[in-house]
Amino acid sequence: MTTPEQLLQTLQTDIEQNTFGEHPVELYEPIRYIMSLGGKRLRPLMTLMAAALYTDEWQRALKPAQAVEVFHNFTLMHDDIMDRAPLRRGQPTVHEKWNSNIAILSGDVMLVRAYDLLLDVESDRIKRVLTRFNQTAAEVCEGQQLDMNFEKRWDVSEAEYLEMIRLKTSVLLGFALELGGIIGGADEEATQLLYEAGVSMGVGFQLKDDLLDVYGDPAKFGKQVGGDIIANKKTFLLIEALERAQGETRTELDKWLNKKEFDKEEKVKAVTDIYDSLDIRAFTEQKINDYFSRGFDCLERVPAEPARKAPLLGFASQLVEREQ
Amino acid sequence: MTTPEQLLQTLQTDIEQNTFGEHPVELYEPIRYIMSLGGKRLRPLMTLMAAALYTDEWQRALKPAQAVEVFHNFTLMHDDIMDRAPLRRGQPTVHEKWNSNIAILSGDVMLVRAYDLLLDVESDRIKRVLTRFNQTAAEVCEGQQLDMNFEKRWDVSEAEYLEMIRLKTSVLLGFALELGGIIGGADEEATQLLYEAGVSMGVGFQLKDDLLDVYGDPAKFGKQVGGDIIANKKTFLLIEALERAQGETRTELDKWLNKKEFDKEEKVKAVTDIYDSLDIRAFTEQKINDYFSRGFDCLERVPAEPARKAPLLGFASQLVEREQ
Repeated sequence: MTTPEQLLQTLQTDIEQNTFGEHPVELYEPIRYIMSLGGKRLRPLMTLMAAALYTDEWQRALKPAQAVEVFHNFTLMHDDIMDRAPLRRGQPTVHEKWNSNIAILSGDVMLVRAYDLLLDVESDRIKRVLTRFNQTAAEVCEGQQLDMNFEKRWDVSEAEYLEMIRLKTSVLLGFALELGGIIGGADEEATQLLYEAGVSMGVGFQLKDDLLDVYGDPAKFGKQVGGDIIANKKTFLLIEALERAQGETRTELDKWLNKKEFDKEEKVKAVTDIYDSLDIRAFTEQKINDYFSRGFDCLERVPAEPARKAPLLGFASQLVEREQ
Repeated sequence: MTTPEQLLQTLQTDIEQNTFGEHPVELYEPIRYIMSLGGKRLRPLMTLMAAALYTDEWQRALKPAQAVEVFHNFTLMHDDIMDRAPLRRGQPTVHEKWNSNIAILSGDVMLVRAYDLLLDVESDRIKRVLTRFNQTAAEVCEGQQLDMNFEKRWDVSEAEYLEMIRLKTSVLLGFALELGGIIGGADEEATQLLYEAGVSMGVGFQLKDDLLDVYGDPAKFGKQVGGDIIANKKTFLLIEALERAQGETRTELDKWLNKKEFDKEEKVKAVTDIYDSLDIRAFTEQKINDYFSRGFDCLERVPAEPARKAPLLGFASQLVEREQ
């Protein structure tokens, strides 16, 4: 049985060998750059693991798996322009290192290259794969637009937020698993379960991201703890707090949200105290568990040999337990 | 036989009925907006006419033809951001009417929707169509990047310029014809000839655009005559002039190119005089004729019934003779 580490190693080599194109260099160098910044490669790994549920020839899924990672990085490249983000994985973003025009156009070519990589599936499966990918890709864009819309609103409901992260983050994780299943030869029921597993785990994953920003262990968490609080980012925790806080607590929360100048540590501590007083941590942890449980439940029901399923279940457990 | 006017009418209705998506409205309204601005619909019309060379069921090509138009408008939406263009077809550009973020993201979804529309071909042709489309789409981006690179250079050669417009403009016209041929059931030789015809006509078409900007009849030309001269746009005429001008003529040309403040009419007249003195007009007209002749030659050699070919040849003649 191929281990997840071996899958990842093969995938990395495959990504490193892709030049994406040559001329003009301004168009392709940023693609190689953002793809070289790394990241956990969760999505393509999920595709390979799902394919390995049904076939020993998981290598057949390498190019389509890479397509998912290229698409994901395309969205990062364009999102970073829209969010005016200076850094991505600790390095300058493409629009900072080059400029916005290059980030727009390189991103466009990345999306085309993702489609190129996706074509590397058996001919009779291309239409199914592309139909599902197109829906996923449009939904990811819809999620990003909702996220931008939410920046201007203070009355985003929990349900709206969950729908936004389902679109922006989770459907791609769902598609990553489904794609592997399709390539491996899984039937409709199995690919549907894989998709639902990925979506549920994806929502749990994003909520965990929100939680770790506030309650993560600074020694283990990769980013600055409290970064979302400092930036007034509308996370699940803040939306929940805005729904719950009343009277003095609400006044105090609004005060910190409206302050233009503040001591960062002080704001992080004050808002965290408000979250604590409203029991936001336990509630968020419960939500995360609910989504991960739903995801695991789907994975359990996926029809495949138990021995083949073990690595995927182990991988899912790591997602649940991650502290960074 | 269906006339080009009937093809266009059916196509227009089909485009008007496409909502592209519903929610969030910020994402899809700009797509409906740019698609409603009109334009000549040259590309999808070429697809339909090429399909009609081989089948009476040209309706089968409607969605793929629309894909080409959606892709073309996607490139316009993103190019307009990069060029900071305020107007498109006399109306505010998407990034002006909304903002750059919306123009980036709506454009991204447009590209996805183009792929959706392209999937509406017979299953056993999807891989061929998408492989060719992906190459074309990447080349169009390469052309746009070269165009931006050329803005910063004064030593662009004629060959470099011709290659840039081949990529940025012409390959999509080639693909539009080729796509119709594939859908109609044409063989490899025929689709190759259709592609080459479209590319050659496309280069001629763009060179004519450059020519009309200077020598067009103000009463017939849609835009301000001399607009490219005022903006120092590196057209075929300017590049040719920069290659030819020597001594006093070169000094005079450089003077106008470097002037920050000037009377627009005066500059247009002065630079046009320089073009005249260097015989640029006749040379450009010769080039245009060369490319159109090459295109016609390919069309003549396309194996199809003469009666079916007549409308396409007539359409091509209109492209040659257009004055706006």
